[in-house]
Formats: sequence, structure tokens, C-alpha cells
Amino acid sequence: MTVHTTEHTTGRQAEPRDAGARSGRNAILRAARRAFTLRPYAEVTLRGIATDAGVSASLIVKHFGSKEQLFNTVADFGPDADGLFAAPLEALGRHMVLTLVHSRRELQRDPLLRVVFSLGNTDERSLLRDRFHEQVTARLTTLLTGPENALRAELVAGQLLGLGATLALHPSGATSAADAERIADLYAPPLQRLITG
Amino acid sequence: MTVHTTEHTTGRQAEPRDAGARSGRNAILRAARRAFTLRPYAEVTLRGIATDAGVSASLIVKHFGSKEQLFNTVADFGPDADGLFAAPLEALGRHMVLTLVHSRRELQRDPLLRVVFSLGNTDERSLLRDRFHEQVTARLTTLLTGPENALRAELVAGQLLGLGATLALHPSGATSAADAERIADLYAPPLQRLITG
Repeated sequence: MTVHTTEHTTGRQAEPRDAGARSGRNAILRAARRAFTLRPYAEVTLRGIATDAGVSASLIVKHFGSKEQLFNTVADFGPDADGLFAAPLEALGRHMVLTLVHSRRELQRDPLLRVVFSLGNTDERSLLRDRFHEQVTARLTTLLTGPENALRAELVAGQLLGLGATLALHPSGATSAADAERIADLYAPPLQRLITG
Repeated sequence: MTVHTTEHTTGRQAEPRDAGARSGRNAILRAARRAFTLRPYAEVTLRGIATDAGVSASLIVKHFGSKEQLFNTVADFGPDADGLFAAPLEALGRHMVLTLVHSRRELQRDPLLRVVFSLGNTDERSLLRDRFHEQVTARLTTLLTGPENALRAELVAGQLLGLGATLALHPSGATSAADAERIADLYAPPLQRLITG
């Protein structure tokens, strides 16, 4: 069963009410994302994440539970895929572009890009990549109809990762300054062509 | 002046002739790429890279010179951009896709993707990203004609990063198995549309 924990509702605990708790929680998530994407799972410790986040290890346990539960929160692409794929096939390209741009601008997070950071890792295997395959690429493959759906699904995933990457790499660039609808005008038709096949 | 050292000719020394020297050299480059993309420049040491590569620090000096010279080799996108951009504008999309796929398959390296790994870094600034802006995005912006060339250049860079990312993330996937010409059939028209404007 896929655990649909997100950064917004953990199921363990209600959303923290005050800004202090929320910023501590966000600092933990940022540090955990760095740790789990850049190092093998076995080498990651709650103590190391706590030091990086500037909080106590017990605060991590309070917010997220065990190391495994924290990993599940960070590595889970399920809710992000739910959001990205929530449109009819014939309108999916534009919906994906707008969802990704809005997520970056309003939530300060990219739905998918963290999986790419894990490629800098020396490991051949990565739990994060396994989750991505299952929750993003394989799911998209089953959504698409027509020939070469696996190939097209991988290329669609690539285009989404590429849009997130270029937004992150050019925080003061033309794309970051552009209207989301204008980005969609330029970037959605290619995506839609791959989706429609 | 841009130093056009590549992984293939350093200018310091002729290409190593035997496979042993070449594999040591490649191990150093892989370790250096990891180090410079994942850690702040000041924290990277030749000793650390040597340990990661399983060689002596003196071998690094012999092959690449100083830490700064090694960084220049790893961070330089000039020769990669030369290869990617070496086609007339009206045929550039297909040329870029084929060049990227061939580089991955024949040289086991992506021309651009290392810049994305640097996003996992905690630094706000990154010399690697500065080089990417100058040697890839800004250069592409001046190549493109018509309106919104900066925006289109960033989106083209995104599509190239996305193609490299999806190939790297799915080493046993449909894209990795597909004929390069078939990938270009699907992926080049969108790129070309952004290039032509």
C-alpha cells in the first residue's frame, strides 16, 4: 500500500499551527531531502538531519516518527503525481505545466525534481528512484493510450523534470519572470503531443 | 578567456595511452564531478577526491594540475555547448537530441546534466551554475532570433536537461532501449518549435 503522506498532512499529527513549528518542520524536510537524495539510505541518520536542520533529533521524531517514516514522506511521489495527472488526457499537457509552475511559486517546491539530485549519488540503486519509477513513470505509462506509451511516458517525465530544472537553475531568469500561462503556451503543446501520441 | 579543456584533451598532457591510466583519469573526473557539484568549492579537497577515486592526490596533480584547474575541467560547458549547437538553426532541434543521446551512449556522459546535481547543494551560489548560465543559456539566447529568445533559450535548456535526466533515471527503460533516430522523431519537433519561435 502506498503511504500518502505529504508535506502538508502527515497523518501522524495535525498541521502545526504556529509559524515557528512550521519553519522547523520545513527545515527538517529540506535537510531530509538533501540527506536522502545525496547519501545511501543506510548512511543517513536522524542526528545528521537534525544537525543540518538546526533542530533536535527528538523534534524530528515528534513531527515525523522514525527514519523510515521520514524517508516515506520525502520519497513519496504519490500526492505529487495525483496533482500532476488530475486532468483529462486531452488537456493534460497544459495542466501539468501550470501545476508544476504553481507548485514552485506558491509552495516553493518542485513536485519531481528531487529524484534527479539522487543521480549524483554513488549508489547504483536508490529507493527514491524506485518510487519515482513506480509512482510517476509506470503510472503515466498506464494512463497513456496508443503505441510506444512507455517511451512517451519517459519523455513526458523528462520534459517535466526539465521544466523544473530550468526554473531552479535560472531563479532570476526569463522563465521565472514569465506568466505561468505564457510558459504553458510555449511548453504545453510539445508535452501534449507526447501525451496524445 | 574561457579555458576549453575537455575530458578528452586537457592541454596539460597528451591523452593517456593505456587503459589503466585512462580508467584512473576517468575515476578522478567522476569523483571530481561529484565533489564539485555536491559541495561548496572551498570545502572540496584534492585529498578527498583522491580518496573517493581510489588514487593518490599526486596522480590528480599529474593529470589535472591544481584544484582550480580540475574544477575548470569539470565545470566547463564550452566544448559540450560547441557540440550541441553545431547545426544551422532550422535543424538544431534534431541535432541536439542526437548529440545528447550519442554522448550518453558512446562516451557514457551527459553534456549538461551535472549542473542539476549542484541544485542539491545548500549553497545559494554555485560556480558551476554561473558557467552554465554563461556558456549554455546566454549563448543559446544570442543564437535564437525572434521574440522571447531568453525565455525560449531557458526552455530549450530545460528540454535538454530533461532528456538527459530521463535517460539517466531509466537506464533499463524504453528510451534507453529506443533507436536514437526514433527518440529524435518524438523529442526534436518540440525543441525545434522553441528554437524557431
